[in-house]
Amino acid sequence: MIIDVHGHYTTEPPEHPAYRKQQLARLADPSTPVPFPARISDDQLRDSVEQNQLKILRERGGDVMLFSPRASGMGHHVPDRDVAVSWARACNDLVHRISELFPEHFVPVAQLPQTPSGSLRRVVEELRRTVEELGFVGVNLNPDPSGTWAGLPMTDPYWFPVYEVLEELDVPAMIHVSTACNPNFHTLGAHYLNADTSVFMQLLSSDLFDRFPGLRFVIPHGGGAVPYHWGRYRGLSVRNGWQDPSELLRNVFFDTCVYHQAGIDLLTRVIPAENILFASEMLGAVRGADPDTGIAWDDTKKYVDHAGLSAAALAAVYEANARRVYPRLDRRLGEMGK
Amino acid sequence: MIIDVHGHYTTEPPEHPAYRKQQLARLADPSTPVPFPARISDDQLRDSVEQNQLKILRERGGDVMLFSPRASGMGHHVPDRDVAVSWARACNDLVHRISELFPEHFVPVAQLPQTPSGSLRRVVEELRRTVEELGFVGVNLNPDPSGTWAGLPMTDPYWFPVYEVLEELDVPAMIHVSTACNPNFHTLGAHYLNADTSVFMQLLSSDLFDRFPGLRFVIPHGGGAVPYHWGRYRGLSVRNGWQDPSELLRNVFFDTCVYHQAGIDLLTRVIPAENILFASEMLGAVRGADPDTGIAWDDTKKYVDHAGLSAAALAAVYEANARRVYPRLDRRLGEMGK
Repeated sequence: MIIDVHGHYTTEPPEHPAYRKQQLARLADPSTPVPFPARISDDQLRDSVEQNQLKILRERGGDVMLFSPRASGMGHHVPDRDVAVSWARACNDLVHRISELFPEHFVPVAQLPQTPSGSLRRVVEELRRTVEELGFVGVNLNPDPSGTWAGLPMTDPYWFPVYEVLEELDVPAMIHVSTACNPNFHTLGAHYLNADTSVFMQLLSSDLFDRFPGLRFVIPHGGGAVPYHWGRYRGLSVRNGWQDPSELLRNVFFDTCVYHQAGIDLLTRVIPAENILFASEMLGAVRGADPDTGIAWDDTKKYVDHAGLSAAALAAVYEANARRVYPRLDRRLGEMGK
Repeated sequence: MIIDVHGHYTTEPPEHPAYRKQQLARLADPSTPVPFPARISDDQLRDSVEQNQLKILRERGGDVMLFSPRASGMGHHVPDRDVAVSWARACNDLVHRISELFPEHFVPVAQLPQTPSGSLRRVVEELRRTVEELGFVGVNLNPDPSGTWAGLPMTDPYWFPVYEVLEELDVPAMIHVSTACNPNFHTLGAHYLNADTSVFMQLLSSDLFDRFPGLRFVIPHGGGAVPYHWGRYRGLSVRNGWQDPSELLRNVFFDTCVYHQAGIDLLTRVIPAENILFASEMLGAVRGADPDTGIAWDDTKKYVDHAGLSAAALAAVYEANARRVYPRLDRRLGEMGK
């Protein structure tokens, strides 16, 4: 079985982003009517994925996709907490309905109603609702809800209430920012990768996983710059008396959203196969195909298949690691006899 | 000949950082006496590099190092322009004196008196002084003088006065940030790499080099995350109608400050040899040796030698590219019969 741990619902019917626009309009002008989540039919939902993520998943030989709302649309920089909760619930309810329509193929992962600062109480509430009531198997956790890095590092006690519940529920978090609110950082070409790099570095110099040994983070986009600079991190660790970066691999995993063969070859050479989770980010940052090879940029299975991994390592990357890191995914698949 | 294009004067006699402390003390309390640059003897300067950068350069078979002041010490986030100018001049004068003491081995590269915003007039003045009067062959240009990314992208017309003079003087700029002023970003393990990635992305979506065809940037630390994610940049370019990333390689070069074999192998596989400049960042972020191999982390010649490059490619990476990208270095070496 091939499990893609990083898919986004980026083909929402237009009524859904229209609801977001109404939310923002009302924040700008409170005399605007209170908006309600769009009514979207099951047929609309089916159409939106059957011709897109599901079609491509099947064409490429994939079986199951962990499916979360559009990351760039999470919009955590908007400070209104009620709006954040309504928006996260609406987004999560859509991916949940899709997972009910296609239970064999889509497994939901939650957007959390983060805001730039303040209490995480309602974040924890939505985490519990999605996991305990709706069967979500993971969450996307934004290390920079402000979009300007105005908040605290992920090793700060500010975050601990979320970590406590992630540990309790045995649910991993993918570290995933939303849209950058700083013109220096292109969202898809810089901010995403910078966040991956920065959070790994925060973890390296901390003892967070001594405190939360059951906490697991998936760092997407192949870990940002981390595997390419693995020697730098090893050297910094020795010089500063930190743990070796390999120590983090008990709790930290990387996905395969790296869109060329040389990149995947580096990832699989540097990071043990047990810590690599197959993913495409489809439909995500990059669409279309390399004109030189005809291979779709995000058809990462092509690169992984050609990375020279053993059959055992491939089985780990494609299936076993995901089932181990996401125990609720494993249980769900088991209940379906898979 | 082996030319290292990225060395920092990180072994300054203590009187020099003491002067900086006095500068900052006076900013905090204007009743403090006006400080003056430390008096440092030639013997002190000789000692400070003979047992450090020069010794290691020789041991590793290097010949020439482009030598700039300590990057993390540039302190461009301090807004006082007079202080920025005094500090840059003091730093530049030291590396200039070292280049006079060891003309065969050290060639000076300037720190610029940047401040978080405002006029670049005095930046241009110090650029002219160092290049035209003191024989500097390059500069370090900080894309984030604020340390918090509060400024404008490097494609903004704000920067054009510097680019005009860089082009006129035929001097390249290494894109190099200083200390991060945001606790989310570790200076050496995240901020440096994020800056490299972010600036490349800024350039990719711009037409800056149409306007300044003679401008040349060296992106250090192996280009941050860029070569590892080359496919992502190619795909983003096709999707967004930008230039292909390879178009940037007329004006953009990467150094070899990547501290393990797998990273250098990726760099040399993805980036044409003509665009790779040998460098160690010595003595820089990472010191000491890999306990597994005994190889010093920043002994990047070891990795480059084992990257499987042809003799012609090695000659380009070690010498010819640096002489082409830094024409004033080439002239200086030529005058010495090299």
